Amino acid sequence: MKHYTHIKDLSDLKTTIKDAILLKMDPFKNQDIGKNKTLMMLFFNSSLRTRLSTEKAAKNLGMSVMTLDINNVWKLEFEDGSVMNMNSTEHIKEAAHVISQYADIIAIRAFPTLTDKKKDESELILKSFIKYATVPIVSMESATGHPLQSLTDAITISEFTEKRKPKVVLTWAPHPKALPQAVANSFIETMQLMDVDFTITHPKGYELNPEIVKDSNVTYNQNEALKDADFVYAKNWSSYNNYGQILNQDTNWKITKEKLGQAKFMHCLPVRRNVVVDDDVLDSDQSIVIQQANNRTFAAQIVLKNILEQL
Amino acid sequence: MKHYTHIKDLSDLKTTIKDAILLKMDPFKNQDIGKNKTLMMLFFNSSLRTRLSTEKAAKNLGMSVMTLDINNVWKLEFEDGSVMNMNSTEHIKEAAHVISQYADIIAIRAFPTLTDKKKDESELILKSFIKYATVPIVSMESATGHPLQSLTDAITISEFTEKRKPKVVLTWAPHPKALPQAVANSFIETMQLMDVDFTITHPKGYELNPEIVKDSNVTYNQNEALKDADFVYAKNWSSYNNYGQILNQDTNWKITKEKLGQAKFMHCLPVRRNVVVDDDVLDSDQSIVIQQANNRTFAAQIVLKNILEQL
Amino acid sequence: MKHYTHIKDLSDLKTTIKDAILLKMDPFKNQDIGKNKTLMMLFFNSSLRTRLSTEKAAKNLGMSVMTLDINNVWKLEFEDGSVMNMNSTEHIKEAAHVISQYADIIAIRAFPTLTDKKKDESELILKSFIKYATVPIVSMESATGHPLQSLTDAITISEFTEKRKPKVVLTWAPHPKALPQAVANSFIETMQLMDVDFTITHPKGYELNPEIVKDSNVTYNQNEALKDADFVYAKNWSSYNNYGQILNQDTNWKITKEKLGQAKFMHCLPVRRNVVVDDDVLDSDQSIVIQQANNRTFAAQIVLKNILEQL
Repeated sequence: MKHYTHIKDLSDLKTTIKDAILLKMDPFKNQDIGKNKTLMMLFFNSSLRTRLSTEKAAKNLGMSVMTLDINNVWKLEFEDGSVMNMNSTEHIKEAAHVISQYADIIAIRAFPTLTDKKKDESELILKSFIKYATVPIVSMESATGHPLQSLTDAITISEFTEKRKPKVVLTWAPHPKALPQAVANSFIETMQLMDVDFTITHPKGYELNPEIVKDSNVTYNQNEALKDADFVYAKNWSSYNNYGQILNQDTNWKITKEKLGQAKFMHCLPVRRNVVVDDDVLDSDQSIVIQQANNRTFAAQIVLKNILEQL
Repeated sequence: MKHYTHIKDLSDLKTTIKDAILLKMDPFKNQDIGKNKTLMMLFFNSSLRTRLSTEKAAKNLGMSVMTLDINNVWKLEFEDGSVMNMNSTEHIKEAAHVISQYADIIAIRAFPTLTDKKKDESELILKSFIKYATVPIVSMESATGHPLQSLTDAITISEFTEKRKPKVVLTWAPHPKALPQAVANSFIETMQLMDVDFTITHPKGYELNPEIVKDSNVTYNQNEALKDADFVYAKNWSSYNNYGQILNQDTNWKITKEKLGQAKFMHCLPVRRNVVVDDDVLDSDQSIVIQQANNRTFAAQIVLKNILEQL
Repeated sequence: MKHYTHIKDLSDLKTTIKDAILLKMDPFKNQDIGKNKTLMMLFFNSSLRTRLSTEKAAKNLGMSVMTLDINNVWKLEFEDGSVMNMNSTEHIKEAAHVISQYADIIAIRAFPTLTDKKKDESELILKSFIKYATVPIVSMESATGHPLQSLTDAITISEFTEKRKPKVVLTWAPHPKALPQAVANSFIETMQLMDVDFTITHPKGYELNPEIVKDSNVTYNQNEALKDADFVYAKNWSSYNNYGQILNQDTNWKITKEKLGQAKFMHCLPVRRNVVVDDDVLDSDQSIVIQQANNRTFAAQIVLKNILEQL
């Protein structure tokens, strides 16, 4: 693995999950592997879990970490051939190449615009770093995917399942703000690689990119979808077809204790309490969002470890 | 000691002061104790000394440090049961619990509103972290107290005193902005535990919380208070009774060389020169504000060391 | 060397360049020298390369690094004797002295106002830190100079030259914003110390400080200056005589492939593509801006190493 920007960059998801669970038992075992290696974390957007867990993961491996909120520095130019006499101070060509000389791995968070679908799907920022950097790139959530989160989710489901083929449901949930599709996309792509009975449910109009959904089960009937579920993963996303729009804030889609049944409740966090899901779900033993968030460290750590081993 | 949010969390102030002074002689002696341990510093407000000295202290002990200016990330929700469809992105329940999984100790700075006395006195932010985090919490100044500062002050007085029972005076001083009572509160509570002759002086209207002041000497007559003082600690605070108000900017309360007499001058810094105290006091050998600021490191270090030893 | 705020602070430029090139071959060799030593990086202005390369350099030497964007904390007061009842929260006297107790070396970035020439030339911020700090000060670009950049430039020219006395040209280039003279000043002062054939070229009105330029060759004729050059260093600066003004954005001064001839192209970065220099120059093998940026680490590292050795 050179870059990690998609779950399929892992040569073998099952093995990676097992390795991550082993790592979790002894997180400081591999501190030599990161010695004299530097992780550069570059944020175009806000972060709490990703920032802290990725820094933790790198330090667990003995790496040095440098963090830059790039918007606090200056605007980067991504267009090829542009005459830079306006607001952009530095071209990605120089920025990515120069930073590569100060770091052994570059991790990047760059959200979508949610207004320009074509630009978002081109993954301009992430792909530009891959093109112009000379070191491995790790996505800490890009315009269309969040593969560190979905690896986390896969690890968590593996830890908590007792069945050979658990039923996993991804359900849309209401939210006051327009959110990216990235978490849902990566979760779908990851579940498609796992031995699970997978269903997606959302209101009409919230269909996700068919190239990602492929032949996964999709239903507009949440109750039907949630029946006998083992894991319920709630997540809001804005419309893909009416790109970036909020079509519906129907509170009937909120996850309640009754709807959850006997399933475990998952969410990538941050979660809007009593909007996405009721307090009594989050505060019950059926919620595994905290354990899930803990696995962020080990997802990041196994990815960084695999990259370091191949440097 | 599990948490450190009040000077009384120390099992024995005298011993802690001695231990801190010993630590100062050889600050790198205990680097094994923090190995593979992480301090998370979370700032809801600005900081210079506290930020740098606490980071230094943790690193002196071999800890790894992560820092987050939480206001740059997103707004946390503290109200129980709220329907989070407004500005708050994440509930303290998740935030505190999740961060606890990435850190061994969480240090928090959260100033008062100075408009909502009840809320400030409830120490909503600090107490919420104590409630929902699963690791020790250290206050880096909360709404009503600054116990790392007052431990620093106790260490400094111990170092500089030659008497068995020195006279220590806390005097209000003018300031152009409304400031918290936190530093004064913690200083009072700490002096009450020390073998000192302690007096508080301030203009009428600046009475502090009687539950904190208890039976400490209080006088409105600054000259009388300062007479034969060994240590003069100047600090502005806004009114407690007319909560958060500036009632008075009377420049007569400024500390001058003449008023200081033979005493040592103390202040937690930052200090407004020629408003709180004259240049010729700060620039004289009688000022020990710099040595006091240096002790911030060792106050933080002994607190972190004591917590680490009991993990 | 105590402080490093000017290229002449180096006892011997030639030896320093050689040492830096040796360091580059084995950057982690001297990790004991920085053990238990802290670099404090203090930014009054934005930074990408300087921030990352200086942090990298310090960590290569085994140092601990603390970073503070001081404008996010509060406003410092620099005027002696001022009555601080306005916007400044802390006087440089306290700030510099206190930070000195938390760090072994303080590195500072503080750009010019470009409106107050006298103030800028007094180097108020940098000189105040030198005056009130008790540890060595390193300039990470001040109002009038950028000596870590010019040491980098000297290292780069040394690495890439094959001649005994290469021709080096510093040429002004257009830019949409008013920029400091700092990089140009330090480059000139450094070239004056090297065994190079040095020429400066710029439009009329862009004359730099004659006390810096001294008897260096200066011509208004860019073509004549660039003839047979081995190294072309492009850089915009605002007018020194009409202080801080943009007099000219003449695109004829842009560096093109034709103008460059057989020379190597240098720039401190960030560079405005197709304003300062054409894409086909930057994207060609004649551009050494990336290698130059890489040397920022080793310039900082040799400077920190020399200071640490004399602590």
